[in-house]
Amino acid sequence: MEERFERAYRELIVRAKEIALISSCALLLGWDEETNLPRGGARHRGEQQALLAGLEHYRAIDPHLGELLAECDASLPEGRPIEAANLKELRRRYERATRLPRSLVEALARTATLSQDAWLAAKEVRRFSDFAPWLEQVVALKREEAQALSAGGELYDALLGNYEPNARWSELAPLFEALDQALGPLLSAGLAASGQDAISLQRNFPFDRQRAFSVEVAERLGFNLSQGRIDTAAHPSTMLIGPGDCRITTWFRKDDLLDGFYSTLHEVGHGLYDQGLDPEAFGTPAGEAASLGLHESQSRMFENLIGRSRGFWTYFYPRAKTVFAPALDDLQLDGFLSAIQRVAPGPIRFRADEITYNIHILIRVELERALLEGRLEARDLPAAWREAYRTRLGIVPADDAEGCLQDGHWASAMFGYFPTYTIGNLIAAQLYQAARRDLGNLDQLFAKGEFVPLVEWLRDRIHRHGFARTPADLVQAATGHPLSHEALVLHLHERYVLHRA
Amino acid sequence: MEERFERAYRELIVRAKEIALISSCALLLGWDEETNLPRGGARHRGEQQALLAGLEHYRAIDPHLGELLAECDASLPEGRPIEAANLKELRRRYERATRLPRSLVEALARTATLSQDAWLAAKEVRRFSDFAPWLEQVVALKREEAQALSAGGELYDALLGNYEPNARWSELAPLFEALDQALGPLLSAGLAASGQDAISLQRNFPFDRQRAFSVEVAERLGFNLSQGRIDTAAHPSTMLIGPGDCRITTWFRKDDLLDGFYSTLHEVGHGLYDQGLDPEAFGTPAGEAASLGLHESQSRMFENLIGRSRGFWTYFYPRAKTVFAPALDDLQLDGFLSAIQRVAPGPIRFRADEITYNIHILIRVELERALLEGRLEARDLPAAWREAYRTRLGIVPADDAEGCLQDGHWASAMFGYFPTYTIGNLIAAQLYQAARRDLGNLDQLFAKGEFVPLVEWLRDRIHRHGFARTPADLVQAATGHPLSHEALVLHLHERYVLHRA
Repeated sequence: MEERFERAYRELIVRAKEIALISSCALLLGWDEETNLPRGGARHRGEQQALLAGLEHYRAIDPHLGELLAECDASLPEGRPIEAANLKELRRRYERATRLPRSLVEALARTATLSQDAWLAAKEVRRFSDFAPWLEQVVALKREEAQALSAGGELYDALLGNYEPNARWSELAPLFEALDQALGPLLSAGLAASGQDAISLQRNFPFDRQRAFSVEVAERLGFNLSQGRIDTAAHPSTMLIGPGDCRITTWFRKDDLLDGFYSTLHEVGHGLYDQGLDPEAFGTPAGEAASLGLHESQSRMFENLIGRSRGFWTYFYPRAKTVFAPALDDLQLDGFLSAIQRVAPGPIRFRADEITYNIHILIRVELERALLEGRLEARDLPAAWREAYRTRLGIVPADDAEGCLQDGHWASAMFGYFPTYTIGNLIAAQLYQAARRDLGNLDQLFAKGEFVPLVEWLRDRIHRHGFARTPADLVQAATGHPLSHEALVLHLHERYVLHRA
Repeated sequence: MEERFERAYRELIVRAKEIALISSCALLLGWDEETNLPRGGARHRGEQQALLAGLEHYRAIDPHLGELLAECDASLPEGRPIEAANLKELRRRYERATRLPRSLVEALARTATLSQDAWLAAKEVRRFSDFAPWLEQVVALKREEAQALSAGGELYDALLGNYEPNARWSELAPLFEALDQALGPLLSAGLAASGQDAISLQRNFPFDRQRAFSVEVAERLGFNLSQGRIDTAAHPSTMLIGPGDCRITTWFRKDDLLDGFYSTLHEVGHGLYDQGLDPEAFGTPAGEAASLGLHESQSRMFENLIGRSRGFWTYFYPRAKTVFAPALDDLQLDGFLSAIQRVAPGPIRFRADEITYNIHILIRVELERALLEGRLEARDLPAAWREAYRTRLGIVPADDAEGCLQDGHWASAMFGYFPTYTIGNLIAAQLYQAARRDLGNLDQLFAKGEFVPLVEWLRDRIHRHGFARTPADLVQAATGHPLSHEALVLHLHERYVLHRA
């Protein structure tokens, strides 16, 4: 029995790794699209991506894979938790893949490449109508995908499953709802505590110094540049091409330190997770991040819980003053902290404070569900967007570029991705609370430049496990509680109301 | 009959294009290795390349491809020269591919990636012994490849065929021999005419201005940057990833204008050929360059015949003086020309004058043939290299970095590539002679910044045909003569003896 299992399992893993290798080629091509592709090369790139997606899909639905999975399931010995977890996830993927026609997979890959290109161009001229036909195509294809995957269940759950395995919106909704309830009063209190007197951070921060400072901080936090890169691109992202090759893209804006710095910190959180995965397990679920929500918990933790803390800036602010001199000469640590911890509703998600950020996500989740379910037409998106922002945040974007064209997710066919940011915020706060319980006063450690204890705690509790344990299980084990909205609400209250009042 | 042909031919082309698409993914990964790959990612990249090589090979040897080729051959209608040329070349590739075991193809791809990495590292510390075990592996694999391909014929011809379809060393040798005979007296005369008084071009040429000037010239010569890129890398090269995506890599050295500028010009010649191919025919031989020798004829023409001419610099030198001010303030056009047209044997191939360049190639061809045929062991390469340079050029390289580690071709498993440079020099001179016959005084056109007539002449005579006509046929049609050494010898005599004496 054991021998029968070993043989089938070994072959299964060889096949899983081959699929992952093809996928990693596609990822590298995707990184290149973001960073290097000449405008004239987009059509050919679409053909390349369609081919790779087809090759991957062909292997992912190979009936022999189904036989191997059945063979392994039937002969799995007791006490093999990693093998069991790999089997569970590989079976889930096989079942999903076999529901998708190859033509749809290829069409999605091709369309996503071209649609990203159209999105970039439309955003540049700040005009949604140029992008509308592409969004319409993407929505139609994603609906088709959701219908094929859902097998009669909820369409949205089918797409959520691309990022958050086995998640159901009906189970997430109460969590989001509880958070939403708490955000209203928090926002009012946070606004009152922040007051009117904003310290402006619109100063002269030259591009190359922003880049140097961000990279310096990334390395100090533990991102290994001999096993990765940091580049600028139209959209910040992190891609694990393979072991030893983790690529962050970010952006910088002249005269604005925060946009680029916090985008980079966010991606560094992703990068540390990726670099903390087991390289030997690459190509199997055990070597991959357990969910996008868990991934976002790492990025959002570095961006906010760590990167907006007093301890972090006690250590880094003197360095920032030197690097950017004379831009910050007149501003002391307290003033700088009050500027980066300010609550202020604005049109842009990635720039939002920690309270309003989740409202941006709730709006996107509502809109993408409506698009998918046909309650909203692609061409009506700008109006619906404006209405939602007016109602929920009391603001109206000046144009489409700071409205519904601001994010590239939908252009890249990433529907069902947005909830993972709020899941990430929830997990991040709960993990951070537990880390303070285990490691003592993190602010004091950070103030001395000691980030290793927290990173090692995360490596041990989260990163190294990959898919071998579920996100729910990892959160429960690390924090002692199932995931709830409470730690996040507590954190927001502490940082934005208590410490400001 | 016609319908039977059309059906089989259509399917054949679909398959050829799929193979080309996989190959173009591998090429993009290769470009990334040269420009962006973190050191830690080399092992994974080797696995990716092995996978793609295997996927490509699997398709290239598909017996159904053989059936389609036979079907097309049997039913090819009269008067279809492009289809006939495609069939001929696709059949040649099919026959070669079916002779190679997949394990060898994958081993070569994997080893070439790792060996390039080892070469870069060895070159950095200027120590051949670090690279020797890799060269030994590459040579063993290339010998295995040559044995499989040659089917009892000449081993070297088998590898030549990777770059120069249907070429035989026994036919090239007399051409190389005739050139070699002429080079001795030319070198003596050229040295005498150059004299001792070298004008130094070791001046302050900041990196970013070199880059800006090179890119400006590239665009002026017709290289389209919306359909391509120019980047810096460890080794200059040009890769046509696909239609609309032609990528040049080059390098620049501070204080040395010529290295970077002429490397860029060389690659621009390649790039213009690639951008002049028929994009609709991409993925079929008719959409590909007809041979590497023909490709090198374009690069060497731009680098030397055009790029070292008086007309070229009459136009560009005033601009260079402005861009690099004050570095060239004291140097007038005549002095500059005498510096860039100087004959001086040195250890580095890519930096060599037009006369000694071919001697560098002859040395490499001798050595790679000896390695392949087992007459020279990899570990003995540095000694053989020094001996050849001492005998043929009267110089001894200071270390391995300026000796046998200077070129990356062998590290990339490119054996049989070097002859294409001299083939390129021969073709370039003969084409240039014909262009002068057809277009009048090129120097006068260049002096007015008019490069379009020559580029269009090349587009018409060479670029647009791809593989649809053989290199021999294209040369004969464009020049009225079969390829010989005479035009090159005449050009070298004119430029380096007559005009200097």
